[in-house]
Amino acid sequence: MPSLDEKFRALAADYAPGQEVRQETGDLNSLMRGGKLEGIPVDFSHGDVDAFPPTPGSEVAWKDGFAIGGQQAYTEYRGAFQIREGLAERLGKFTGKPISGGKELIITPGTQGALFLALGATVTAGMKVAVVEPDYFANRKLVKFFGGELVPVPMHYLRASSENGPDLNRLEAAFKSGTKVLVFSSPNNPTGLVYSANSIEAIAELAARHNATVIVDQLYSRMLYSGEVYTHLRACDKQPENLICIMGPSKTESLSGYRLGVAFGTSMLIDRMERLQAIVSLRAAGYNQKVLDTWFLEPQGWLEKRIGEHEAIRDELLGIFRAASFPTFTPQAGSYLFPQLPPLDFDYQAFVRMLRHQAGVTVTPGTEFAPGYGDSIRLNFSQDRRAALAAAGRIVKMVNLYRNGARK
Amino acid sequence: MPSLDEKFRALAADYAPGQEVRQETGDLNSLMRGGKLEGIPVDFSHGDVDAFPPTPGSEVAWKDGFAIGGQQAYTEYRGAFQIREGLAERLGKFTGKPISGGKELIITPGTQGALFLALGATVTAGMKVAVVEPDYFANRKLVKFFGGELVPVPMHYLRASSENGPDLNRLEAAFKSGTKVLVFSSPNNPTGLVYSANSIEAIAELAARHNATVIVDQLYSRMLYSGEVYTHLRACDKQPENLICIMGPSKTESLSGYRLGVAFGTSMLIDRMERLQAIVSLRAAGYNQKVLDTWFLEPQGWLEKRIGEHEAIRDELLGIFRAASFPTFTPQAGSYLFPQLPPLDFDYQAFVRMLRHQAGVTVTPGTEFAPGYGDSIRLNFSQDRRAALAAAGRIVKMVNLYRNGARK
Repeated sequence: MPSLDEKFRALAADYAPGQEVRQETGDLNSLMRGGKLEGIPVDFSHGDVDAFPPTPGSEVAWKDGFAIGGQQAYTEYRGAFQIREGLAERLGKFTGKPISGGKELIITPGTQGALFLALGATVTAGMKVAVVEPDYFANRKLVKFFGGELVPVPMHYLRASSENGPDLNRLEAAFKSGTKVLVFSSPNNPTGLVYSANSIEAIAELAARHNATVIVDQLYSRMLYSGEVYTHLRACDKQPENLICIMGPSKTESLSGYRLGVAFGTSMLIDRMERLQAIVSLRAAGYNQKVLDTWFLEPQGWLEKRIGEHEAIRDELLGIFRAASFPTFTPQAGSYLFPQLPPLDFDYQAFVRMLRHQAGVTVTPGTEFAPGYGDSIRLNFSQDRRAALAAAGRIVKMVNLYRNGARK
Repeated sequence: MPSLDEKFRALAADYAPGQEVRQETGDLNSLMRGGKLEGIPVDFSHGDVDAFPPTPGSEVAWKDGFAIGGQQAYTEYRGAFQIREGLAERLGKFTGKPISGGKELIITPGTQGALFLALGATVTAGMKVAVVEPDYFANRKLVKFFGGELVPVPMHYLRASSENGPDLNRLEAAFKSGTKVLVFSSPNNPTGLVYSANSIEAIAELAARHNATVIVDQLYSRMLYSGEVYTHLRACDKQPENLICIMGPSKTESLSGYRLGVAFGTSMLIDRMERLQAIVSLRAAGYNQKVLDTWFLEPQGWLEKRIGEHEAIRDELLGIFRAASFPTFTPQAGSYLFPQLPPLDFDYQAFVRMLRHQAGVTVTPGTEFAPGYGDSIRLNFSQDRRAALAAAGRIVKMVNLYRNGARK
């Protein structure tokens, strides 16, 4: 049993997106090479909801919720019934298989809330849990918090496209050696890789065969770029007995300020998640829930336009990083880029802090996503286009200042 | 180690406030004595925020938050700095000792969120945790969820007033036998008892001496009735090394639909709570946080009026229950009444369900607050006055229908 000190050391969040303001700048000035790089500061740690504002109508929906009063303030812990019914209908269509709004869906405080509840409902002390590397940093932290044992499954993304994706042999070996839960994101955070139909079908089949629970974080599955295809695990022929899918309107739709997410899947697990929600924070904020009535009902063409704008930024940033020879996967969906930096003669973690200090550019270090990714940085490119391109240019300049051999 | 099934059975929430709609009515019709009792349905499981609406200005503050945009959507996990600074100033004055907004305060998703984080930051597997009986039902569930061992400390409330309060001998014995954390609410939920200065000072001294962490839930401490005095543990001379106080604007101020709470205390524990918040739901909904700028800054006379209106309802309800000879403590603060019912020839839990089914009155069974309180029911009397009085009358009628010997 780890002590509370150890447990909370493992939860260190100083490099987590949004927490950078709490870092001490300490000795950075004495280590700085050259002067500050001018330019509009850009915080790539999360999307800029001023550059890409919330979907139209969210504020009006919120006011409608407030006007309803007590009934909307005190919903069931799993969320207001009518809102769940509407969501179940629309998410069922989106994912290719009906959902029961009464039994198979819970509204949560953000997708983070959904992930916490899903892992809390499935992981207990000593349980082996397969976690993809690299993947969303909270997955590893959650498994550790609930006392589970991490079983890493590598995912490739800088190989030839046919070789990219999760290592299915390693996954099968994990299941064979008693792993009971798999959690992963597709589109993958931080790389933007969308798991192929082959991968998803294999995961479904393996989990069904080995009686393992699967938790799929599909947060970015709506922002799918030209020519890409998304495969929904819950619509596969083979089905694990226990499956939870997670989505939310915080990213593509810029509704993060409302803290809304949903989880849908096996009703026994949704029941557990609600029981846990009852002691965690009761429910997603009541009035805010009403905003979900606008989700998947955006004005005609709105989603296509938003995807197109992100695709344009993606392509320009890829151009900049590739011109600088940073190996970078072309995200198939979502708004994350995960470039690999060349060798520096400077600690990567310190470089990330220096980037913020000297160049006004905030990124998330690769170590947040798995050990061994210290040379990579994650950028959420849902940003003002011109500011983002200029900031990417500053990243390249900074790498040149701190790269191996730059200081002779 | 309990299995996940056992763990989640202990979290059953079917009788928790707001969850009653999920109960099956099943066989109630066949057991019903006489016909339905007519009247406006009253849900005493929580306050009626339509009868006592949110504090003036909350909607405008929310809109201000939304208008700020990205900065308000993505605050630090512990909440927006400026809002914390203001809260620290006002809560410091209220509780009689300064608070550092930077280091000693976290904004949480409701006071439930604060309790979850506080216990998560202090309780680990096998740790002995003192829990008062009766007290808020989530306390026990949280201790069990984090693997702690419950050490019950009885609280008396139906004796002569000098004998009421927590059993300090039992508390001392608990500390002596290795109990490391005490969690309790004052005003007590469900009875409305305010811990005396003597009790609070003794708790502070005992916890300091035995190096125990104290978590005080002060949710209802603002709604203090005529002639009552509230003692703030954090302003006592003797101080436990680790102390967390919890408050929020969900009750007296009817702001529950925003899911806002705060915890303030030992900075090391606040740090841990923030790390946990980072994997639980990131932060209290960003735009909603702005509503806290109105807290403790209500219009002149607003609080006094609200307290007066509740005191009037309290006194009328006490009159009804005492006329029926239900032993009931006079709440010194807050809006809970906890009458003890006479012996019934009907299961008390079933009676609570029948009350809802036959008489349109929803209450929370005493078993939620501790084992052994099955004969008591909790009412949140923050309700429309006339509807509440009529519903209390129906409770008395129902008791007469189902009491011992009623069916001859």
